[in-house]
Amino acid sequence: MEDFFKRAKGSSGKLSILKPVVKNRILNEFASALRENREKIIGENKKDLDYAKEHNLSSAMVDRLLLDKNRIEAMVSSIELIASLKEPVGRVLDGWSVDSGMSIHKVSVPIGVVGIIYESRPNVTSDAAALCFKSGNVSILKGGKEASYSNIVIATIIQDVLEKNSLPRELVSLLPDSSRDGVDKLIKMDRYVDLIIPRGGEGLIKYVSANSTVPVVKHDKGLCHTYIDEFADIDMAIKIVLNAKCRRVGICNAMETMLVHKNIAPTILPMLKKEFDKHKTELRGCENTTKIIEVNPATNEDFDTEYLANILSIKVVDSLDDAVEHIKIYGSGHSEAIITKDYKNGELFLNAVDAACVYINASTQFTDGGEFGFGAEVGISTNKLHARGPMGIEGLTTYKYKIYGNGDIRS
Amino acid sequence: MEDFFKRAKGSSGKLSILKPVVKNRILNEFASALRENREKIIGENKKDLDYAKEHNLSSAMVDRLLLDKNRIEAMVSSIELIASLKEPVGRVLDGWSVDSGMSIHKVSVPIGVVGIIYESRPNVTSDAAALCFKSGNVSILKGGKEASYSNIVIATIIQDVLEKNSLPRELVSLLPDSSRDGVDKLIKMDRYVDLIIPRGGEGLIKYVSANSTVPVVKHDKGLCHTYIDEFADIDMAIKIVLNAKCRRVGICNAMETMLVHKNIAPTILPMLKKEFDKHKTELRGCENTTKIIEVNPATNEDFDTEYLANILSIKVVDSLDDAVEHIKIYGSGHSEAIITKDYKNGELFLNAVDAACVYINASTQFTDGGEFGFGAEVGISTNKLHARGPMGIEGLTTYKYKIYGNGDIRS
Repeated sequence: MEDFFKRAKGSSGKLSILKPVVKNRILNEFASALRENREKIIGENKKDLDYAKEHNLSSAMVDRLLLDKNRIEAMVSSIELIASLKEPVGRVLDGWSVDSGMSIHKVSVPIGVVGIIYESRPNVTSDAAALCFKSGNVSILKGGKEASYSNIVIATIIQDVLEKNSLPRELVSLLPDSSRDGVDKLIKMDRYVDLIIPRGGEGLIKYVSANSTVPVVKHDKGLCHTYIDEFADIDMAIKIVLNAKCRRVGICNAMETMLVHKNIAPTILPMLKKEFDKHKTELRGCENTTKIIEVNPATNEDFDTEYLANILSIKVVDSLDDAVEHIKIYGSGHSEAIITKDYKNGELFLNAVDAACVYINASTQFTDGGEFGFGAEVGISTNKLHARGPMGIEGLTTYKYKIYGNGDIRS
Repeated sequence: MEDFFKRAKGSSGKLSILKPVVKNRILNEFASALRENREKIIGENKKDLDYAKEHNLSSAMVDRLLLDKNRIEAMVSSIELIASLKEPVGRVLDGWSVDSGMSIHKVSVPIGVVGIIYESRPNVTSDAAALCFKSGNVSILKGGKEASYSNIVIATIIQDVLEKNSLPRELVSLLPDSSRDGVDKLIKMDRYVDLIIPRGGEGLIKYVSANSTVPVVKHDKGLCHTYIDEFADIDMAIKIVLNAKCRRVGICNAMETMLVHKNIAPTILPMLKKEFDKHKTELRGCENTTKIIEVNPATNEDFDTEYLANILSIKVVDSLDDAVEHIKIYGSGHSEAIITKDYKNGELFLNAVDAACVYINASTQFTDGGEFGFGAEVGISTNKLHARGPMGIEGLTTYKYKIYGNGDIRS
């Protein structure tokens, strides 16, 4: 298996110096090849679906696995979009001259070899391969076992395009051993692998983070809060928290806890209850909440839970400081919002809360690469370093310093 | 001990929102307090020196430990310099509006709690504390056991200044347990510690990298090459490689291996031997080198060794590609140089070699925060992610997105 990683690393130099026009042409060939092989992909996907049904996987899981004409067309469009993105490699990020006259250029370069660990959706295979290829990185993909027929056929189609272009098949690979054992090897290969991106359940991500000797960019939980300040516009607050909770409940940028200033709580909570009832949202409130509206009691465990479901915890707070303190204890550093008309409170909140995205008067569900205008999204990083929050294709690059001398020696 | 980390994390919010003017005033107070307590510091340092002599530590080690009037003055100046640096927190790094009209600002913020593990030089204590304080980070410092009296007195003087300013002493702390056990706890405290920077021997850095669950920015080895192209200016080449090897031999940006194109080798190697002989540099050459000049034979192990001594391996290569390939196998991704007059070869080398710093016609010994104009240096990172190469105080910050809405909800 070490040989496999060595080959991957060995091929990375070739990819890092491919011209943008060549990369984009090949990306479009990936897209066409997938479109042309649609029936073949659907046939292999059928084997995964049969396996899933035989093993009684949940209908949600089966839905995630399914590839049909429309979904394959979406995969194809996604690759075409990635091909059309601005070239991420070779950007001059900074540059200056030093006393001797020597010129220093800080230039974006590929990271090298990127391992991506993900779960059932087979479209991630083509997406991740295309994002890595565009950014000049060799990709090692480890998808869910339940999607292996689909993943193999997609990767093979892409590798055939590489070979037709006289490039090594290793530029896009599936991890040869897709068991937990394979993952264990992958995350210890710091000699050959430069970055691991785990996407999936909390268990997997915790395990990878704790055991990897390769740097990890995590995409895990979001326990997001919205704080309704005493100076909030009531209509705006209602509109925003409904969106933050109910637009979609199963995603990491959804609000899980609503904090309400005690001075506005008696007015707004009854109005909010009416609205949330329409959405059948289960409300769980602190003691002070229960004095104003009829809700189930919330425990500290509630405040510590990412429901990913149509449930909302509510806490009445005495002050902005209390709201910030609550977020400090329970927040996951993902996305936090304040609703207020007050300038000072708004800035205080934005500055004091330590999270990737801090909002004033907007829904936390905007935390998304597409909404941020990144064109394509690698994920939403919950790291503090390298990439934080929505991660565009730039997150798949690092930089080097190119230094232009003229016989310069250091005194 | 967990309580200690919890308190450190708890105090980080206070520091992150201190105004620049206040931070800089307090930094200057650190400097004055160290100057005023010079005799006390020298007294405590004496205890470390006595211990070192009793235990027969090497004279190099004793020299590194020593604090005298001049060295304390250098510590003081370094803090004053850090106080005068441009504010690293709150820089607006990027910003744009999205379709809804919502405005997104990408702003630099402190990382949080930074653990720094270092060895015998006690001046690192005040330097690291000042760099972290300036960048709004709580610092947890773990110095060498042999410097503990010195480190304790320096940290205490700084903490007294913090207390006088009604700030928690936890903003700058020495790790309470300075044994390997203490390090083991520190590197597993990902809940409270956001970054570990190990500086020191290769063993320590390997251990920390392999076992830390906290992100690590390494500062380790540099196995740097200089490639003399067939189209090199001979006088320039001689001047540069002498500087790259002999200016200082014990530092990570010193050249360890010289690669010479076969067409220029017969001319330049005898000239170089004469010069290196003047510097008493031991030369170890490949077979082809030994056919041109009288040198000891170099083994593959030589090419894989960071000597940090007045020894140089030499290899004659057939082509630029061979030089790049050699660097790919043996280089540590630190600093690599080509000497050439040829435009195409120069750019090829700069682009193909994967290292933090790639030079044309200059000495690798320029890889240094000061030489790069960073004002103060945290170190030279051998990471590929977050910070690569010379790391200024900006390397102690991350970013958050501040998003200004006006009732925006996601459709």
